[in-house]
Amino acid sequence: MELKIQRAIVKFGMEDLYEYSDVDVLIVGAGPSGLTSAKYLADKGFKVLVYEKRLSFGGGIGGGGNMIPKIVVQEEALPILKDFKIKYKEAEKNLYTIDPAELIAKLAVGALDAGAKIILGVHVEDVIVRDNPPRVTGVLWRWTAIEISGLHVDPLYTQSKALIDATGHGAEIVQIAAEKNPELNIIIKGEKSNWSEVSEKLVVDYTGKVAEGLYVTGIAVCEVFGLPRMGPIFGGMLMSGKKIAEIIEKDLRG
Amino acid sequence: MELKIQRAIVKFGMEDLYEYSDVDVLIVGAGPSGLTSAKYLADKGFKVLVYEKRLSFGGGIGGGGNMIPKIVVQEEALPILKDFKIKYKEAEKNLYTIDPAELIAKLAVGALDAGAKIILGVHVEDVIVRDNPPRVTGVLWRWTAIEISGLHVDPLYTQSKALIDATGHGAEIVQIAAEKNPELNIIIKGEKSNWSEVSEKLVVDYTGKVAEGLYVTGIAVCEVFGLPRMGPIFGGMLMSGKKIAEIIEKDLRG
Amino acid sequence: MELKIQRAIVKFGMEDLYEYSDVDVLIVGAGPSGLTSAKYLADKGFKVLVYEKRLSFGGGIGGGGNMIPKIVVQEEALPILKDFKIKYKEAEKNLYTIDPAELIAKLAVGALDAGAKIILGVHVEDVIVRDNPPRVTGVLWRWTAIEISGLHVDPLYTQSKALIDATGHGAEIVQIAAEKNPELNIIIKGEKSNWSEVSEKLVVDYTGKVAEGLYVTGIAVCEVFGLPRMGPIFGGMLMSGKKIAEIIEKDLRG
Amino acid sequence: MELKIQRAIVKFGMEDLYEYSDVDVLIVGAGPSGLTSAKYLADKGFKVLVYEKRLSFGGGIGGGGNMIPKIVVQEEALPILKDFKIKYKEAEKNLYTIDPAELIAKLAVGALDAGAKIILGVHVEDVIVRDNPPRVTGVLWRWTAIEISGLHVDPLYTQSKALIDATGHGAEIVQIAAEKNPELNIIIKGEKSNWSEVSEKLVVDYTGKVAEGLYVTGIAVCEVFGLPRMGPIFGGMLMSGKKIAEIIEKDLRG
Amino acid sequence: MELKIQRAIVKFGMEDLYEYSDVDVLIVGAGPSGLTSAKYLADKGFKVLVYEKRLSFGGGIGGGGNMIPKIVVQEEALPILKDFKIKYKEAEKNLYTIDPAELIAKLAVGALDAGAKIILGVHVEDVIVRDNPPRVTGVLWRWTAIEISGLHVDPLYTQSKALIDATGHGAEIVQIAAEKNPELNIIIKGEKSNWSEVSEKLVVDYTGKVAEGLYVTGIAVCEVFGLPRMGPIFGGMLMSGKKIAEIIEKDLRG
Amino acid sequence: MELKIQRAIVKFGMEDLYEYSDVDVLIVGAGPSGLTSAKYLADKGFKVLVYEKRLSFGGGIGGGGNMIPKIVVQEEALPILKDFKIKYKEAEKNLYTIDPAELIAKLAVGALDAGAKIILGVHVEDVIVRDNPPRVTGVLWRWTAIEISGLHVDPLYTQSKALIDATGHGAEIVQIAAEKNPELNIIIKGEKSNWSEVSEKLVVDYTGKVAEGLYVTGIAVCEVFGLPRMGPIFGGMLMSGKKIAEIIEKDLRG
Amino acid sequence: MELKIQRAIVKFGMEDLYEYSDVDVLIVGAGPSGLTSAKYLADKGFKVLVYEKRLSFGGGIGGGGNMIPKIVVQEEALPILKDFKIKYKEAEKNLYTIDPAELIAKLAVGALDAGAKIILGVHVEDVIVRDNPPRVTGVLWRWTAIEISGLHVDPLYTQSKALIDATGHGAEIVQIAAEKNPELNIIIKGEKSNWSEVSEKLVVDYTGKVAEGLYVTGIAVCEVFGLPRMGPIFGGMLMSGKKIAEIIEKDLRG
Amino acid sequence: MELKIQRAIVKFGMEDLYEYSDVDVLIVGAGPSGLTSAKYLADKGFKVLVYEKRLSFGGGIGGGGNMIPKIVVQEEALPILKDFKIKYKEAEKNLYTIDPAELIAKLAVGALDAGAKIILGVHVEDVIVRDNPPRVTGVLWRWTAIEISGLHVDPLYTQSKALIDATGHGAEIVQIAAEKNPELNIIIKGEKSNWSEVSEKLVVDYTGKVAEGLYVTGIAVCEVFGLPRMGPIFGGMLMSGKKIAEIIEKDLRG
Repeated sequence: MELKIQRAIVKFGMEDLYEYSDVDVLIVGAGPSGLTSAKYLADKGFKVLVYEKRLSFGGGIGGGGNMIPKIVVQEEALPILKDFKIKYKEAEKNLYTIDPAELIAKLAVGALDAGAKIILGVHVEDVIVRDNPPRVTGVLWRWTAIEISGLHVDPLYTQSKALIDATGHGAEIVQIAAEKNPELNIIIKGEKSNWSEVSEKLVVDYTGKVAEGLYVTGIAVCEVFGLPRMGPIFGGMLMSGKKIAEIIEKDLRG
Repeated sequence: MELKIQRAIVKFGMEDLYEYSDVDVLIVGAGPSGLTSAKYLADKGFKVLVYEKRLSFGGGIGGGGNMIPKIVVQEEALPILKDFKIKYKEAEKNLYTIDPAELIAKLAVGALDAGAKIILGVHVEDVIVRDNPPRVTGVLWRWTAIEISGLHVDPLYTQSKALIDATGHGAEIVQIAAEKNPELNIIIKGEKSNWSEVSEKLVVDYTGKVAEGLYVTGIAVCEVFGLPRMGPIFGGMLMSGKKIAEIIEKDLRG
Repeated sequence: MELKIQRAIVKFGMEDLYEYSDVDVLIVGAGPSGLTSAKYLADKGFKVLVYEKRLSFGGGIGGGGNMIPKIVVQEEALPILKDFKIKYKEAEKNLYTIDPAELIAKLAVGALDAGAKIILGVHVEDVIVRDNPPRVTGVLWRWTAIEISGLHVDPLYTQSKALIDATGHGAEIVQIAAEKNPELNIIIKGEKSNWSEVSEKLVVDYTGKVAEGLYVTGIAVCEVFGLPRMGPIFGGMLMSGKKIAEIIEKDLRG
Repeated sequence: MELKIQRAIVKFGMEDLYEYSDVDVLIVGAGPSGLTSAKYLADKGFKVLVYEKRLSFGGGIGGGGNMIPKIVVQEEALPILKDFKIKYKEAEKNLYTIDPAELIAKLAVGALDAGAKIILGVHVEDVIVRDNPPRVTGVLWRWTAIEISGLHVDPLYTQSKALIDATGHGAEIVQIAAEKNPELNIIIKGEKSNWSEVSEKLVVDYTGKVAEGLYVTGIAVCEVFGLPRMGPIFGGMLMSGKKIAEIIEKDLRG
Repeated sequence: MELKIQRAIVKFGMEDLYEYSDVDVLIVGAGPSGLTSAKYLADKGFKVLVYEKRLSFGGGIGGGGNMIPKIVVQEEALPILKDFKIKYKEAEKNLYTIDPAELIAKLAVGALDAGAKIILGVHVEDVIVRDNPPRVTGVLWRWTAIEISGLHVDPLYTQSKALIDATGHGAEIVQIAAEKNPELNIIIKGEKSNWSEVSEKLVVDYTGKVAEGLYVTGIAVCEVFGLPRMGPIFGGMLMSGKKIAEIIEKDLRG
Repeated sequence: MELKIQRAIVKFGMEDLYEYSDVDVLIVGAGPSGLTSAKYLADKGFKVLVYEKRLSFGGGIGGGGNMIPKIVVQEEALPILKDFKIKYKEAEKNLYTIDPAELIAKLAVGALDAGAKIILGVHVEDVIVRDNPPRVTGVLWRWTAIEISGLHVDPLYTQSKALIDATGHGAEIVQIAAEKNPELNIIIKGEKSNWSEVSEKLVVDYTGKVAEGLYVTGIAVCEVFGLPRMGPIFGGMLMSGKKIAEIIEKDLRG
Repeated sequence: MELKIQRAIVKFGMEDLYEYSDVDVLIVGAGPSGLTSAKYLADKGFKVLVYEKRLSFGGGIGGGGNMIPKIVVQEEALPILKDFKIKYKEAEKNLYTIDPAELIAKLAVGALDAGAKIILGVHVEDVIVRDNPPRVTGVLWRWTAIEISGLHVDPLYTQSKALIDATGHGAEIVQIAAEKNPELNIIIKGEKSNWSEVSEKLVVDYTGKVAEGLYVTGIAVCEVFGLPRMGPIFGGMLMSGKKIAEIIEKDLRG
Repeated sequence: MELKIQRAIVKFGMEDLYEYSDVDVLIVGAGPSGLTSAKYLADKGFKVLVYEKRLSFGGGIGGGGNMIPKIVVQEEALPILKDFKIKYKEAEKNLYTIDPAELIAKLAVGALDAGAKIILGVHVEDVIVRDNPPRVTGVLWRWTAIEISGLHVDPLYTQSKALIDATGHGAEIVQIAAEKNPELNIIIKGEKSNWSEVSEKLVVDYTGKVAEGLYVTGIAVCEVFGLPRMGPIFGGMLMSGKKIAEIIEKDLRG
């Protein structure tokens, strides 16, 4: 029986890797904004792939606020919660509490049932570029385990029409693209201290394209554009994820 | 706005902690068998709480087989997949492949929608015991972050009628109970080398109670009863989770 | 009984966290200057909260001078020792030795009995800001255990009218405020080499406000204003703590 | 001025080390039971020294219950709280909450003002023994910093008539004495799982002498005598500390 | 071009993994004895696979003797050197020096050109067993990077008719088989101190089968059978590798 | 016998170290480009020495593409594969797959049989320089084990007419030479993101001399000259190794 | 000039390694007892070699007592101090203080000027044995740097007529010999707690042979024979070193 | 007896610390240049103190050249060897080999017998400064163990008329003085690559004062003045140590 299991996994798993070497949209990071964008993009019919460096999804959601298992969203985000069938409870005017575990699981199911593919344990270490005009056309990735191990192993490729950095505070993908390719003309301003009210709005406003083929969503937006950060309030993350889906739809179909 | 967020989280999060200090069934480990048992127990109307040491769920599922993102189940487990609305694809006779990310997310949603509560980032470090007759009545837990930090901090309690060890290979909860309380008469035989066919059956057969108030499910069953292990095949895990739910229902209602 | 203990701690502990989400003065660091300022500010009737990253207080006091369990103060600081009922012994003209353990314990009791609240094991990781004019209105904090663990967990907030950086050599809070918020116009000059006599005076002279809502006391003053450091002599620390209390009283009541 | 500070610390600090090379009672561990016993023993006129491995006191108190800053005591311990002037608040019948920071600071001030000496940053690594009859007559200690550094450095000595192990869960001193000196006939049974009600009583009952010259108090009692542990309830700790003081008074004066 | 590279590697690499899921002989360890046995077994027409945990071959050869880049063999091993076309130089009667780098490279080329497959970076973590009679039928393996990373990821399988432990000092495979499967009746005696002359002979004499389906060669033989070790002399290793090939040929063809 | 082995290794190993203190060409790094250049240079009659920091050769080859054991080369590199007798298989037009283990072993045998010397476990930590004109005349090296250990130990020397940096991504040797010797006028531009097609050509074009006595080959060329990187395609590496051999031949014989 | 330095070191250093492959007495550990024995044995005309794992000598001397730079010896050891020209100062009756730095340096000079060879940075990892009768005839050693690095590198040999374990608390050499060679019939009793007066005498009394060819001196004697330890008093160490020299002289000349 | 040992060490050790709080010359680093300067300065009648961060002396001497236990000096340094009674052997014209262990021990004995005091295990972490004119008047130091432990402990002071940085490659003391005190106008140029012949001369030429009260000797000279480094040749180190002694004599007596 072991041989059958082995060959089923190698054969069907590798068919997936082969198939997903070339996608419409590649999202790096399976946190709130990444998963939200995955669902709406898959809903629109794109071939969507999400790479997550950990072995499960949720990004910074799982620890709630300083480990207290509760987080909040504001009224504007309720339609998205409804799209994902996530329960919420009014805490006070325009502020709703939700369960972190449910938010993680339902965001993932939402994305998966819409047709997005999520591959866990993947570390993206570089981007693929072309010039004239300069653009980003995919990534170089390795299993996170290789990254942690420090072993010297070459990466593989994934090709994308649109690449979304949904990696959170460090904006890791934009950072790499900026540092290694001056011709992309990306300037990273660095996240500012906390101002929840203002930042929840700005993070959605600034969500968008940073170079041809490269987009940013979620808290990584604050890092790139020098916006204040927020705390354990997730409405802006979800709305940013939805907005980037709309922008990319326009760009890819435009 | 920060003050409102802060107080909403502290107030509503702590109400949950207060409420979930006392449950019918406490499951340690949000991997395949733990989440399966959570759903079926919650379906039966029990107050169910799951503690997971990481900040997301899925246990060993997320890495597929040696990172190849595909795992398998056998035919007997298909009804459970259907209960959770998980897609599968026939690989060959009696062997079906499933997507690891989907398995994680749908198991969690299944448990949550049935009414189970999942709290992430919780490390269970000891059990509560009573004697005459000896029995286990709950656990001592701390945030995983405290465990990792090595800081000397006292735990809190959670009281349970039934405690399920769904922690996987180490059978951590049974291990602690056995080592510290000889009067529970628990002997841990240690997992044996791999024999997938045989072990997929035995792991279900041996699923059950190990002491008053303490049950074991999933791969931890192999550790406790000296059974062979299996590999990236998950049917036995799911069926063991379902079976422990039935056993506990009988014990608590009996 | 476990359930009663559990619920008493969750209920009453969380009431404190709720209550102390909003304070007059928030002091970061329970070393000599932080605790001194806590006492005098609480004496003046302010609602005072102290966050300390370790699980006990005392900062750099406990190791005496290179572990020899004795430290010194000069004559000008004796009135403060008397306020805290700390014993001292003349070593030679204008130089008194004190017991480090007693200094720690009595500074803490002085602050607590005056009505200040001290919460241990708290790591402040960012500040809350507002603009026009730019000002600091509180902090973002997590349990130190989370910080050490490296887990990705969102912080909580505490709102303050005055925030005091009493974190010692690194001036951690001022550093964060300065780096992330150029509009606060804070320049950190960096501590200079040792000149005890001069620095004991200058550290008190320079104690004060560094931005709207943000103050600095103790050895952090040397870091911010480029003053020489001192060694295991603590008079300047105590006097700086007392002075900042007077400045803040004026600012908040003015 | 630096030279004066230097010489004041070396001279007066070393006089203390010289003086405290020989004491009536040496307590290892400045947690709740250690500090309580220190106060009552010093009150009785003994020369008392406390060695604490960290650079501040409080043992496991500072983290409250799983970092929630609140702990509890039962009614029987209220007289001790009163002796130390520690505030408490009734949570429910026979259960009182106290502030962890205040408990730490007031226990320390109580011990110090009674005349006990506390030296911080000291790691006890072995005991001094004599035979015929076998007895413990002191300890070998090094700065904790040396222990952490892994450097090969010889210890110093402290001589005692009575040595109290108040080191908590590991019962480190009794452990060393037992392992290295079979003729002391000490058997360590190992702490059992939690049963707060029973263990709060037993920990006081079993507090006492484990070999000539060697005593045990606090949670270390559970380790040595195989008692169940408790959680963030501290009445037993305080009463154990008071009881060991009475036993030693009888032994040394008897 | 990236997509072409990606798909060529995924397709052809995975065909190899699929193909090599089931082999005649699986050798764990690409040191001197493992590579020697690989060549002679492949020469005999068996389907041979070598798993090596590092990302290159050679085991303990590369460091010579205490980093001095020279090792020795005795006269009896010269025919094997000739089979592999390895140069040697007489040092004195019956003792020849060889170049460590050449030994590594030529052993590997010898094995590869004979038709053996070597896969690098593979950590074998368990064996597959069957009972009645008890026998070993393959292994569970993961990328070494996963092992180093500490991530919780399920292994894959490889099925074998004969499994050779050529892992060196720890005899890792025999160790696992023995510890987890008492019915295999394997007793590990532990390597003894050095006696080069005697041990160079005994290591060849004891080379052989340790359980049905499981064989041992090279320095692991000393570990299993309690023989003295040798030092930087490699004749015994090569001759043991050749001998195990002959034994397995007989067993598989017998 | 031990004494004979000992003295044979010390005597003959040290004769090698003595002899190889002074070489025509010193290559740092035994990866694809380093080994290729070693063979062609030795073929031309130069005294060639390769220092490799690990205890075996192959650089980044052994992990294939993200651990999938297969790598590719393009058509232009086939003549080199033939020189080294390495098998290849057409994947599609102008793209051939090869076995990583075979590539490593045959590159090494090719270099060794041509007469190059490879010493493993050597860390090069600095270069030897002369001025007027500024030139590099050799290296300072220590065993890698010393480097890892952090012990303070002086290096030894090796003198060379031509020194090749074949260390890969970091271009470690050129980096050291540039940082410590401004008069060499070396500017390191830093590797750019991936563009396989372009970079496979440019890496060969830019292969060459960076200062008198100092040359660069392989992926280190991208680091030095700011070229895009490639992925698990190795044709450029091999062709760069061959080209540097031709350039150096001209320079040394010129 | 670099080439000359290189070749002088390789040539003359290696002549020493060759020459010192075979000695009369090999002492492991350059602490107080090891260096003392080295001097007296060299004085008697033996070819003496000392291996020390650190890069300088002195063992536990350098840290004095808990870093206070002073140690003591009793009257009986004064003749040895005189032999080494070490200054001492009476502290009180029969107790003399000495300077740790001077003790280290003069012990080393004493040994060297008597003709002993000291090689630093050497880790002894095993012994060479013969049977019938069982005896120890030398050691296997590697540079300490290799040990720390964790690299897999074979050791070299040194042959001895008498091997002295002067490694201190762990009695590392006797430990290895005992564990790996049951036929040597060595039982290690483990050091007991401190009793300075008694142990200073017993350590000299028990100094001697533990197996044919293997001797023990210094604090390792306490480990082997189950004697109490002492603290920063070094008379016993020196006298034990002198005594072992006398015993070995008799055995080798016997 | 333990009490006597304890009090002798505390009393006499502390008298030394008290006495050596104020010296003529403080040398940081007990390597070749530091110890050489210590001897010649003590010979001239100065009160000399050496602080060494390790627990023994010798700096980088003990590892010889890449662990081969031999180092070299040139002819010009022979008079210094003679002053210290160190044996040497001609290797070739103007190049002599010496034994590293002997060099360490004899340099130390030379310094000690001349009257210098060496305290081991001391980490210097800052300097004492005065202005108008800016000058260095001593250091702040802690036990190295504290530094390694990372504990927050205040330093002690030592006052000096002349402070010598003999810390080797990093020039640690000059580095600290330069970074923290711009008014000292010290610019650190950074060591260059190796050119032994030239650097052996320049290191002596540049030996001298870097600021009022602060001097530099040995390899730290290369770091400060941007000179090439040398390798395992030690003549320059010894001559630099002798020269700094002469310069300081002039400055202090001048």
